[in-house]
Amino acid sequence: MFKATSVKAALQASEPADSILVNGWVRTRRDAKAFSFVELNDGSCLKNLQVIADVGMPGYVETVLKLTTGAAISVRGELVASKGGGQAWEVKASEITLVGAADATYPLQKKGHSMEFLREIAHLRPRANLFGAVFRVRSRLAYAVHQFFQEQGFVYVHTPIVTGSDCEGAGELFRVSTLDPSSPPKSEDGLIDYAQDFFARPTYLTVSGQLEAEVFACALGNVYTFGPTFRAENSNTSRHASEFWMIEPEMAFTDLAGNMDVAEEFVKYLIRDVKEHCADDLAIFGKFVDKGLLERLEFVLERPFQRVSYTEAIEILTASGKTWENPVEWGDNLQSEHERFLAEEHFKCPVTVYNYPKEIKPFYMRLNDDGKTVTAMDVLVPGIGEIVGGSQREERLAVLEANMDHHGLNQDDYSWYLDLRRYGSVPHSGFGLGFERMLMFVTGMANIRDVIPFARTPGNAGF
Amino acid sequence: MFKATSVKAALQASEPADSILVNGWVRTRRDAKAFSFVELNDGSCLKNLQVIADVGMPGYVETVLKLTTGAAISVRGELVASKGGGQAWEVKASEITLVGAADATYPLQKKGHSMEFLREIAHLRPRANLFGAVFRVRSRLAYAVHQFFQEQGFVYVHTPIVTGSDCEGAGELFRVSTLDPSSPPKSEDGLIDYAQDFFARPTYLTVSGQLEAEVFACALGNVYTFGPTFRAENSNTSRHASEFWMIEPEMAFTDLAGNMDVAEEFVKYLIRDVKEHCADDLAIFGKFVDKGLLERLEFVLERPFQRVSYTEAIEILTASGKTWENPVEWGDNLQSEHERFLAEEHFKCPVTVYNYPKEIKPFYMRLNDDGKTVTAMDVLVPGIGEIVGGSQREERLAVLEANMDHHGLNQDDYSWYLDLRRYGSVPHSGFGLGFERMLMFVTGMANIRDVIPFARTPGNAGF
Repeated sequence: MFKATSVKAALQASEPADSILVNGWVRTRRDAKAFSFVELNDGSCLKNLQVIADVGMPGYVETVLKLTTGAAISVRGELVASKGGGQAWEVKASEITLVGAADATYPLQKKGHSMEFLREIAHLRPRANLFGAVFRVRSRLAYAVHQFFQEQGFVYVHTPIVTGSDCEGAGELFRVSTLDPSSPPKSEDGLIDYAQDFFARPTYLTVSGQLEAEVFACALGNVYTFGPTFRAENSNTSRHASEFWMIEPEMAFTDLAGNMDVAEEFVKYLIRDVKEHCADDLAIFGKFVDKGLLERLEFVLERPFQRVSYTEAIEILTASGKTWENPVEWGDNLQSEHERFLAEEHFKCPVTVYNYPKEIKPFYMRLNDDGKTVTAMDVLVPGIGEIVGGSQREERLAVLEANMDHHGLNQDDYSWYLDLRRYGSVPHSGFGLGFERMLMFVTGMANIRDVIPFARTPGNAGF
Repeated sequence: MFKATSVKAALQASEPADSILVNGWVRTRRDAKAFSFVELNDGSCLKNLQVIADVGMPGYVETVLKLTTGAAISVRGELVASKGGGQAWEVKASEITLVGAADATYPLQKKGHSMEFLREIAHLRPRANLFGAVFRVRSRLAYAVHQFFQEQGFVYVHTPIVTGSDCEGAGELFRVSTLDPSSPPKSEDGLIDYAQDFFARPTYLTVSGQLEAEVFACALGNVYTFGPTFRAENSNTSRHASEFWMIEPEMAFTDLAGNMDVAEEFVKYLIRDVKEHCADDLAIFGKFVDKGLLERLEFVLERPFQRVSYTEAIEILTASGKTWENPVEWGDNLQSEHERFLAEEHFKCPVTVYNYPKEIKPFYMRLNDDGKTVTAMDVLVPGIGEIVGGSQREERLAVLEANMDHHGLNQDDYSWYLDLRRYGSVPHSGFGLGFERMLMFVTGMANIRDVIPFARTPGNAGF
């Protein structure tokens, strides 16, 4: 079989070629007197390959003059240096075959569709330049995640999606079941008999793989997860999805400072990698989505991350003289407006806030010697706010047990987790990075629905 | 902070070091007259680092002589060439600190636990040599999957986990819901009112990302998925899990032959990569799990995959003179015994079987010109049987619609899928590789429960 060349490979050619085959979809066709110009795209890169079809070529009238936006074609011809200014190479076609037509009902032929409309045709929008770019960057960013950790010897762990436990001890969960919902089996007390459910217990979709990742860190040293997580929150914001991917490294023999080091390095690595490998795609975001994007990415790469304790952060916010929608004092959670003020206005750089009040943080975070704060840390970036949340974990059995009691958790449900502290317990730390949040930061896309292939949000599970 | 060295890095050192810090867990301690020998492991590799503690060192009696299997320690000392035969380097300790003790109840100190018992302590078994090796190989294999596709320009796509559709048009599904299971809202007809459920419709856990991957292949060319998939089958075999990871590449402008090329290349690439990067771990499987493992892997690497049509395969099976548990004739599915006969006895090499009867295959496979078979293909390997299943997809709208009618599917439910054939339709192909099956093949592990961090099977969703 004659091997096809991708548009990307053709555009990066080092020399002309007498005979190539390129497949793809027609973006536009323009007819001049002696030629037609067909812009061909195959998704391998943002740019199109210009195809020149001479009016004298066989099938010119029957095929070329009927080519419409969205049609699939195969082009044979010669790769030659382009005389036009826009590209280095173009194809002088000797044969163009229509593979699959696209008639006048093809929704993407007109420009200027709203983002809302494009969400409704999520099965076609990856064919639009902007969304092709989003999903190529998504792919590269995911690969960069793996590279970062694998190159440093971290072990990738697939933590379970279906789980009987709820990591955060709270939160709204999706239930997973095979019981007949219209007449579930009941036990004598009239309650649903989950012993008859598929897993012989109530099960849910995971909200985090952290606790299971801790198991592996306490055996293999440095590990990370990268998988889907779920929140059944009924919140319709531009930053929340019900199904999203999360990265959760967990590191044995690592304290809070070491944890912050890795988190900051990781964020920079991802940005640097995408800048290097997706320059064309980033340019389109900089042009059409967010004019300040490239500057903001540069800014994060260049500046050292500022580190500030929660207590200091509260002092800065209080001293700022700002009027907050949500007034804030020691003991309160930081809201988005506070986080963005710290990163965008006060420090003018990414900020890592650490040592939060224990009352507003989960049971597994390590208690500091002050008895009031725990070793939590959040990385805040300009334009987004929190992008990373992590902590050093409580490795002292007695302190952890006391903290679980304080949070009203049943120790029996966590006996395996407590075993990690019974046998060869070690200081260990980790964090979570929301993959889609990072992707929004890197692309400037304002709505999480537009960086997910088929977004799941309240009321939406189409495709 | 004094930066620690991993056991792996210490064992691969190019020169001695005056002062290093190594953290890890004690595997064994052996006391001689003038020294104690502590075998230290940190999960970074299979091998231990030998630590020599002189009886004269500070804390020898209080700390070293009390070290037990499973205890976490920090060791400072000198990295020196080893005089013993087993290793190139060892550490002459100057200081050993107990980080976390492990008392006599630590379950992993005795050897010879059954695999069943180790499954019950899935939170501790990664600390056993064998399971450390399994999960390091799992991580490497996952990375190799990404490398294979990314290096060839494939775009990684996260297809949805929660879905309203069932790719295979059949199969047992897990239901995902936030409705109160004891009193779900009902509509006037007495049925459950899914309009009030979280996604305003019935939703399930995905069994395959193929249909969504086709969307992206028809926009970006070559794509792949790698994510969790689910089967609510109540089958308790050593090869089935309810939650498993699957890789599904999908390629535009690719026919069945091209599909088989990629599948075969992919399987070989994965084996080659693990052989290169996990030699020590593979050796332990070859020694303790499956003596024929390394030979079998070599065998797959060296031989070209045999290709045989389903019709030829049936002729071979019929002519074999074998007595089958499941007698087989044209039109039947191949069972595991048939698949293994083809790969292990008849051809004595991996076999790709293609062009199956249309009646036993799903609606989306491309109908061949004979009108009886579709372009399905399965890759069979010795010891496992089917490891890859794929097909060229039906790209002709009318043929696909007819086939959906034949399978009793409602076209309205698949209008987005049909749109791919309405607008710029192209020949395209793809396949699925079960990640855990591949991992079983590469490690020789006989039970799928033992290659998954926390396996989900009927009745089991612990941890």
